[in-house]
Amino acid sequence: MSDQDLKLKFETMEAGDFKDFAKAMTDYIAEYLENIRDRQVVPSVKPGYLRPLVPEQAPEKAEPWTAVMADIERVVMSGVTHWHSPRFHAYFPTANSYPAIVADMLSGAIACIGFTWIASPACTELEVVMLDWLGQMLGLPESFLARSGGEAGGVIQGTASEATLVALLGAKNRTMLRVKEQHPEWTDTDILSKLVGYCNKQAHSSVERAGLLGGVKLRALQPDGKRRLRGDTLKDAIEEDVRNGLIPFYVVATLGTTSSCAFDNLEEIGEVCSSKNIWLHVDAAYAGSAFICPEYRYLMKGVDKADSFNFNPHKWMLVNFDCSAMWLKEPRWIIDAFNVDPLYLKHDQQGSAPDYRHWQIPLGRRFRALKLWFVLRLYGVENLQKHIRKHIALAHLFERLCSADERFEIYEEVTMGLVCFRLKGGNEQNEELLRRINGRGKIHLVPSKIDDTYFLRVAICSRFSEESDIHISWEEVKASADEILKAR
Amino acid sequence: MSDQDLKLKFETMEAGDFKDFAKAMTDYIAEYLENIRDRQVVPSVKPGYLRPLVPEQAPEKAEPWTAVMADIERVVMSGVTHWHSPRFHAYFPTANSYPAIVADMLSGAIACIGFTWIASPACTELEVVMLDWLGQMLGLPESFLARSGGEAGGVIQGTASEATLVALLGAKNRTMLRVKEQHPEWTDTDILSKLVGYCNKQAHSSVERAGLLGGVKLRALQPDGKRRLRGDTLKDAIEEDVRNGLIPFYVVATLGTTSSCAFDNLEEIGEVCSSKNIWLHVDAAYAGSAFICPEYRYLMKGVDKADSFNFNPHKWMLVNFDCSAMWLKEPRWIIDAFNVDPLYLKHDQQGSAPDYRHWQIPLGRRFRALKLWFVLRLYGVENLQKHIRKHIALAHLFERLCSADERFEIYEEVTMGLVCFRLKGGNEQNEELLRRINGRGKIHLVPSKIDDTYFLRVAICSRFSEESDIHISWEEVKASADEILKAR
Repeated sequence: MSDQDLKLKFETMEAGDFKDFAKAMTDYIAEYLENIRDRQVVPSVKPGYLRPLVPEQAPEKAEPWTAVMADIERVVMSGVTHWHSPRFHAYFPTANSYPAIVADMLSGAIACIGFTWIASPACTELEVVMLDWLGQMLGLPESFLARSGGEAGGVIQGTASEATLVALLGAKNRTMLRVKEQHPEWTDTDILSKLVGYCNKQAHSSVERAGLLGGVKLRALQPDGKRRLRGDTLKDAIEEDVRNGLIPFYVVATLGTTSSCAFDNLEEIGEVCSSKNIWLHVDAAYAGSAFICPEYRYLMKGVDKADSFNFNPHKWMLVNFDCSAMWLKEPRWIIDAFNVDPLYLKHDQQGSAPDYRHWQIPLGRRFRALKLWFVLRLYGVENLQKHIRKHIALAHLFERLCSADERFEIYEEVTMGLVCFRLKGGNEQNEELLRRINGRGKIHLVPSKIDDTYFLRVAICSRFSEESDIHISWEEVKASADEILKAR
Repeated sequence: MSDQDLKLKFETMEAGDFKDFAKAMTDYIAEYLENIRDRQVVPSVKPGYLRPLVPEQAPEKAEPWTAVMADIERVVMSGVTHWHSPRFHAYFPTANSYPAIVADMLSGAIACIGFTWIASPACTELEVVMLDWLGQMLGLPESFLARSGGEAGGVIQGTASEATLVALLGAKNRTMLRVKEQHPEWTDTDILSKLVGYCNKQAHSSVERAGLLGGVKLRALQPDGKRRLRGDTLKDAIEEDVRNGLIPFYVVATLGTTSSCAFDNLEEIGEVCSSKNIWLHVDAAYAGSAFICPEYRYLMKGVDKADSFNFNPHKWMLVNFDCSAMWLKEPRWIIDAFNVDPLYLKHDQQGSAPDYRHWQIPLGRRFRALKLWFVLRLYGVENLQKHIRKHIALAHLFERLCSADERFEIYEEVTMGLVCFRLKGGNEQNEELLRRINGRGKIHLVPSKIDDTYFLRVAICSRFSEESDIHISWEEVKASADEILKAR
């Protein structure tokens, strides 16, 4: 260290350059998104494509922003899978909207870390209120909302995986305390080895991971013919486990499974959980957005019996990743599980507002409520409902086109923006169909398999999708089928 | 669902409006940041301030963007703690820079979820290469870098907490497999109950949380007089535990503790860990950025013995949150721990490029390598080094001012951008000092306590900080001390 270091000046981006750069980027983004359907949806690059396109080391001297801008197409876009293209039908949608992009700019500029209330009161308080707005939009019971005046309320997690894990830890904590009171002679290790949780075999892989992480057994139960977990199945499993000396403590009900968008019977499951004092977590990661339309709320009947509820506005509600909304009736079980309280994080107002660091796995957190606020205001509930309804209508359009072709069958009832279908043939033929479709490079799908039956999934993902896009996607599927069936 | 739904159009933000909005936001951000030192660093709002400022429910109809823009000062900024003000000296810095903000705009527009290579090859590959750039900048051994050709490499985690947990899970997996081979008669529960990890008593609270989450014992060991964990202390603890039948499996060495920026003796700890086959994780969350300046690398001597290394460019290297860089020599232990592989996530290129979903807790991930790429290119290594050196020089300036006032003492040697100091009096007097300083509202500090000694922390946080700012902060401290000492 020398005194000269005090005078150091960056030779880099000043405010004027930032304005030019950000405005050039704004124009680039609008151009990219408005014309996204003209790009090849999955790039044809091979693993390792990027390394030769950039220097081996970071530059010593600052480069001009125009040099970076000039590299975006060459280095980045040449290897991007375009999730927001109407030709992209893989996985489930992830959100992207203009209001969310602008909100994230502001979040980046404020760049506070909202781990406690005092660390940035606006960051915590806007989140509390936005989760109340959102909960009302979904028709969640008041017992989940902060405005009800109790301890309940919402929080933004990074992903549904984290929400599943946080709920599991709350359930574990609540049950361990109860069992310790009943059996003071048992050690923590004794109790832990007896805990058992439950989910549908069709639940997301992150549920299994949460169990691995939390160090507890999770049983994946057989769904009914429509891939729904039913109350009786759950009840039988619980009773069997209790007979064997285990302690059921946690159930994850999935509303909208990843494979086929099936809905567990929440009403039946809720009855079982509340009669047996078991924590019920609802994972509605994808489908939860549809509950802003009252006509779909029948699918979440029984939600009043849940202890925690989670869905991802960053999937289907136009709020960019990451924004996973979670509500807890009794957050104290999570807060207690994580009670690590160093002096440098204490503050005078503790207790009168949530310190969200206790509600989540990481300590740090961005100002994510801004993008929720911007999206809700700049779309309004009405337009968000239109977005959902249109996607569902487009899925039904694809379903009709597919059903009208006698070579195909619809594998699962279409309720949301996902169509599961297959050729009326063997798995190998359908694997070949997928290879051809993706090989032609015009659209992108992923497959799934249930009970040894392989099928294809078309998810409606893009906010730019129109009727004509669905016809194009269907024509691609048909053309690939023609190739296969002619070749035989 | 009706056929009319197919025709639904959003009455909301089109590309033209987006351009106007994003450009207005750009100007607002530049104005905000360039004049940030004029704002009151911590707002004077009380808990609950925000709810009455916004409607009780989300609007039905879309609002114009100008309405949202008009609410930012009133609703948000009135409750923001300004982390990037030169008057903000609390916690540690969090990063914020113009290049990172623009990169995040692009990341938001592409909005891919990079859980596998095929899900967006550029997202994975730019991350691999950027972590190689960064590792070289820090002088990390080649055995951590992907370009070495083996399995090693880097990954961007959300936070250092997550990196600590991921490393712990890798260590647990590696050790469990080894012990199972040696003792096939032991159950998983047996082994788990014997595992024990170690860290400095001064390690971050997230280390304790990682232990809680992973369900293993962690021992917090007594540091030496300079708050450094030493090799002999660790060795003694390990040998004691082995005598008692436990299985040491994990050590976290902290380079730059949160309380006082102390550095564990990595060279000694590394010797112990490698001789006993224990996973060594290095948590250099804050201080790691300084290793881009060769003159500070003596503090990470012994890093070649580590299994994993982590630091946060989102703290001190001008890359906006979240961007926590982690390198692993043997990522296979993490990948195996998480091996949950549903069909819809499989792809043809598996194995020839990393699928980062196996390297982290959540499934989803944003395109975060872009902001690293933009910052490294638009600053260049030289200017990032200047940023670090200037902050350290400013800390030493504060140290000199404080040392020259005989009422004060410097509590801990200043090596980075943190000064720990106190009045030469009791804890109560220093608590009163902090209350006065923060109460005057011009600057913001947080305290800490080690071995019952309470002290104040001044962290240099803002990239706008200049010599004159440090003089202002010092005058604030001095004025508060004058008030207290006169009042006696």
